[in-house]
Amino acid sequence: MNKNCPFCAEPIREATFAENDHFFAAYNIAPILPGHSMIIPKKHYCGINELPEELLMEMIVFARMITHFLTEYYHSTGFDWSIQEGEDAGQSVEHLHWHIIPRRKHDLKTPGAWYSKLQNSENEPVIDSHARKKLTSEELQRITDELREAFMTV
Amino acid sequence: MNKNCPFCAEPIREATFAENDHFFAAYNIAPILPGHSMIIPKKHYCGINELPEELLMEMIVFARMITHFLTEYYHSTGFDWSIQEGEDAGQSVEHLHWHIIPRRKHDLKTPGAWYSKLQNSENEPVIDSHARKKLTSEELQRITDELREAFMTV
Repeated sequence: MNKNCPFCAEPIREATFAENDHFFAAYNIAPILPGHSMIIPKKHYCGINELPEELLMEMIVFARMITHFLTEYYHSTGFDWSIQEGEDAGQSVEHLHWHIIPRRKHDLKTPGAWYSKLQNSENEPVIDSHARKKLTSEELQRITDELREAFMTV
Repeated sequence: MNKNCPFCAEPIREATFAENDHFFAAYNIAPILPGHSMIIPKKHYCGINELPEELLMEMIVFARMITHFLTEYYHSTGFDWSIQEGEDAGQSVEHLHWHIIPRRKHDLKTPGAWYSKLQNSENEPVIDSHARKKLTSEELQRITDELREAFMTV
């Protein structure tokens, strides 16, 4: 638990639609595409290298399960996974978070353009951007409620 | 084994600098940055969803171990991981491959710009691009030999 970490704070619970003992599955407050979510450890691990091996394995199993749920829910035909570790690699929040982005045909101009959707400006595409359009708390609440309900019936 | 798959073919062995029973760690023929490598299952699994759970867990443990080796070798301070699953998500080779990109401060214009380095054109950034500059086979051979030797002494 880190007092200054947004992923340790209460708001992340509002964005959470599924969880297990060690991880949250939370909707991204500034989604690139519908369904853009994150797997986040409940404990304040900064990155992949800090995770005990057992949790590392549990994380990918949970990530795959949540990805499967999201791709069904959003009628997706694929997905992107991304982790940025360290400030020099583009990580903005110092609490491990695994991006899951469900994809569909023609959802972006080109299939590989998911990353450019994240850009701040033409020259500075970033995935962990605070500059992306944020959902209102009502929008986030509605989406999270719907996902939570759908997840419970899986 | 798929006869038409480049990751099932012999050349991938030339790019391989580490392996275990089920996975290759291979240098990317068109690296974004020094050290850009891939974890590739030896068996022709198209994507994450086809992997048995045991191999899924083994893959992330192997990926972390190789990432640790690469970030030490390249004196990196971070790394990016990326998987694109399905043609609609930007996957170009239909054989699961997990991108590992070691990062250093100021290696790109901005930390989050690793993805834009992969672009075909201004409007079409893609990670699995055949349009990126390829290493010559001599360059690839030299790098792979050096990594192989370094890995053996770990």
